Amino acid sequence: MAKTSAGRFFEDYTLGEVIEHAVPRTVSGGERALYHALYPARHALHSSDEFARACGLPGAPLDDWAAFHLVFGKTVPDISLNAVANLGYAEGRWLGQVWPGDTLTAISEVIGLKQNSNGRSGVVWVRTTGRNQHGEPVLEYVRWVMVRKRAADAPAPDTVIPDLKDALAAEDLVLPEGLDFTHYDFTLAGEPHRWGDYALGERIDHVDGVSVEEAEHMLATRLWQNTARVHFDATLREDGRRLIYGGHVISMARALSFNGLANAQIVVGLNAGAHANPCFSGDTIRAWSEVLDKAETAAPGVGALRLRLVATKGGAPFDLRGEDGKYLPDVLLDLDYWVLMPL
Amino acid sequence: MAKTSAGRFFEDYTLGEVIEHAVPRTVSGGERALYHALYPARHALHSSDEFARACGLPGAPLDDWAAFHLVFGKTVPDISLNAVANLGYAEGRWLGQVWPGDTLTAISEVIGLKQNSNGRSGVVWVRTTGRNQHGEPVLEYVRWVMVRKRAADAPAPDTVIPDLKDALAAEDLVLPEGLDFTHYDFTLAGEPHRWGDYALGERIDHVDGVSVEEAEHMLATRLWQNTARVHFDATLREDGRRLIYGGHVISMARALSFNGLANAQIVVGLNAGAHANPCFSGDTIRAWSEVLDKAETAAPGVGALRLRLVATKGGAPFDLRGEDGKYLPDVLLDLDYWVLMPL
Amino acid sequence: MAKTSAGRFFEDYTLGEVIEHAVPRTVSGGERALYHALYPARHALHSSDEFARACGLPGAPLDDWAAFHLVFGKTVPDISLNAVANLGYAEGRWLGQVWPGDTLTAISEVIGLKQNSNGRSGVVWVRTTGRNQHGEPVLEYVRWVMVRKRAADAPAPDTVIPDLKDALAAEDLVLPEGLDFTHYDFTLAGEPHRWGDYALGERIDHVDGVSVEEAEHMLATRLWQNTARVHFDATLREDGRRLIYGGHVISMARALSFNGLANAQIVVGLNAGAHANPCFSGDTIRAWSEVLDKAETAAPGVGALRLRLVATKGGAPFDLRGEDGKYLPDVLLDLDYWVLMPL
Repeated sequence: MAKTSAGRFFEDYTLGEVIEHAVPRTVSGGERALYHALYPARHALHSSDEFARACGLPGAPLDDWAAFHLVFGKTVPDISLNAVANLGYAEGRWLGQVWPGDTLTAISEVIGLKQNSNGRSGVVWVRTTGRNQHGEPVLEYVRWVMVRKRAADAPAPDTVIPDLKDALAAEDLVLPEGLDFTHYDFTLAGEPHRWGDYALGERIDHVDGVSVEEAEHMLATRLWQNTARVHFDATLREDGRRLIYGGHVISMARALSFNGLANAQIVVGLNAGAHANPCFSGDTIRAWSEVLDKAETAAPGVGALRLRLVATKGGAPFDLRGEDGKYLPDVLLDLDYWVLMPL
Repeated sequence: MAKTSAGRFFEDYTLGEVIEHAVPRTVSGGERALYHALYPARHALHSSDEFARACGLPGAPLDDWAAFHLVFGKTVPDISLNAVANLGYAEGRWLGQVWPGDTLTAISEVIGLKQNSNGRSGVVWVRTTGRNQHGEPVLEYVRWVMVRKRAADAPAPDTVIPDLKDALAAEDLVLPEGLDFTHYDFTLAGEPHRWGDYALGERIDHVDGVSVEEAEHMLATRLWQNTARVHFDATLREDGRRLIYGGHVISMARALSFNGLANAQIVVGLNAGAHANPCFSGDTIRAWSEVLDKAETAAPGVGALRLRLVATKGGAPFDLRGEDGKYLPDVLLDLDYWVLMPL
Repeated sequence: MAKTSAGRFFEDYTLGEVIEHAVPRTVSGGERALYHALYPARHALHSSDEFARACGLPGAPLDDWAAFHLVFGKTVPDISLNAVANLGYAEGRWLGQVWPGDTLTAISEVIGLKQNSNGRSGVVWVRTTGRNQHGEPVLEYVRWVMVRKRAADAPAPDTVIPDLKDALAAEDLVLPEGLDFTHYDFTLAGEPHRWGDYALGERIDHVDGVSVEEAEHMLATRLWQNTARVHFDATLREDGRRLIYGGHVISMARALSFNGLANAQIVVGLNAGAHANPCFSGDTIRAWSEVLDKAETAAPGVGALRLRLVATKGGAPFDLRGEDGKYLPDVLLDLDYWVLMPL
């Protein structure tokens, strides 16, 4: 019996199956420090325990996307090792904060299957839940990937396409326990713009750019224990470059969005996301945002903003799709998410 | 109203104005570990809690230059985003140690202004103070930068050039509370040379060299939340290289100075500093030191040494200026600072 | 008197001499996070405090090889700064775990000396012991290096070659206090293969590869405070490349061996090790293992496996030596060690 795992293929998934992912992980101040070294992260609530306390939390939680990457990383060996493409995300919700000392685990349920017409691959939908050591859910999201079949003649499963929301409603969002922005310090946070200052349809060019290096994205991707080979093995492509983990682009763009969205402190919902084009070492990542929706919340002084966050490696800000409706070649990421801001 | 900040220009500064800088930051063992990964730091008092306790401290404080970079980083968006040049430092004093769990904030007061004769830029002097979560000052220093004007026809302010000390006197230095080198362990510290072994005018070639990479200086500069674009965006220069943050050179040179100054444990004063030439990825940084002054202190067993620390990217050790009085092209840094050593 | 150290030469060592190495080091969650960023480390017992507790330990200890590198790093300035070659390891035993907050020190005893016939260098054998702040040993190992002589005419010492074991016996291994694999969770650990599933002589290709970058190995080598210049100074070789610290290859190969040896949780013995060929930035490291021996232990549910771990930068898996008996040029590392696994 082979001791190593070659990953699952399309015919290995069964509708309703629950996969318990391996390798629990405890986080500490080390992960927080590394997150700040890898990305130009400046949102005050994740940077400062004192600022977080002044907002009603017990301290600064781990960055929301770091929590996402940690949970996502656990799923890679079971879900996407043989994936041809990472097709989408939906119904992502941060359900609780991750604190230093917490240990995360993850499970995924197969909620959809559809063999492709070519018979050589298929689409797998999973709903993944990350939990802490108390069994409390901290994150859940749906993701679908195209996975190769091991054997072309393996029978196709019944097609089941899950019914997913285009976007979470504001009522679906879970607010961090105790969150209170009534005494929010805009000076310490870095910008004066409050929830009421953002208009529907408003677009913000985040101006700054960061050129990425091989060493950096590999450090990040390993930190999340993401094992996908394309990110690490230079012999897989003729040009010796490694494909940069899409989550690295998400975190870079989110951090760059500080300039213009410094008060968008907490990410609570992921409505959709597309990794439009591959990112490679040497690319200079820039970002722009668009306000898609606004909502009040039940937490004191807290509003929710639904944003589009687009990461690019060139081109003009606000360019997204060509005349054919396809993403322009310089677009890396198109993300649709909910954040919490002071009113 | 534009949501993003383009930074301040010369005419945006007013004498006496106090700027409260954004983004407080909590540090932990993560920042300490990263400091040791980024620089060949070996000074025992910052490496070992036990060694620090044997010297009368409650544990190992964050490296003095890490504390400096963290405070400095906060000032960048308000002070030097449109700076043409970082001209100098003076009257820098470490006033307290930074411990794991501490949260730092920073404010700057504008203490000098002078428009350049070309009318297109001016010099701004600020005195910056870093504080911990108890409001206790941990660091203060004066820094002056040349800043572009937004509008050439903006009126020039009255010229005020602050009266700054050429160097701090030994009496100006603040000794860490409890510091006691009477039972100092020279073997664990790595060298037998005590304060009395260093002679005025003595020069030390620190021998070792470290070649620097893009990924490393960007990790470091982000860790301090320094947002200056020239350090991150490869599209700003034709050669695709990024200008390395001067503080990265300071920390690299300070760490290299361990070889010959292993007992120069604590930095307490910054008298002056010049970033003589730019540093780029691929450069190999070396360092040499010169003893500028010596003083006894009130703390048991503790002496103070005033040192010149020069970082180079080539050339012979001890070469500093050409016949024209200007820094030689291989000189990166000329720093004048006070350290504490066992008597 | 020169303040800097040029390191010791062969004639500076005396049989029986004990060298107390400098720079104690305190570790925290920062070192753990960095270890996970530098290597694709996934062994659950080092990744998760909860998993470690379920195995009878008080929490997740620092990775065994991180502890090794930290102790090894301390010895470099005294043992291998003028080493021509790192010739071998023997009788390495992990004697205790390293916990966050622990401070490590190291001493070495010179146990063997043999001048080479050319009279220009010699071999030095040392037995190094790492201890925590309580004086408890956490690691010991024998290492021998070829060191240059300062003066060719320095008299040769009496030749003493220590009597070293080819391999530790299972009875020599020290089991972590409290270790109990009776309730081991194979799902969370990532693989179903238990001690009984591994056969003597079985060989495992670990499949995955990681291409290494200059920035990464320098970060790692500095983290262990290893000061050997060849790892940092690009001016020492014509091609500008830096020789990668052999310990970086060990940790990379060990982490890669997760795929097939996910349950080989704790390294307890180092029987032998050869850095067969140099590793440089750009190399893609792969690994394979061979089961050399098996033994039961006194700890509940815990078996011991003696493994050969080979790291390569090319070539076919399981190729090791050429017809001449020498290591093939693509072999980087040949390591012989003991690990603990669930029965």
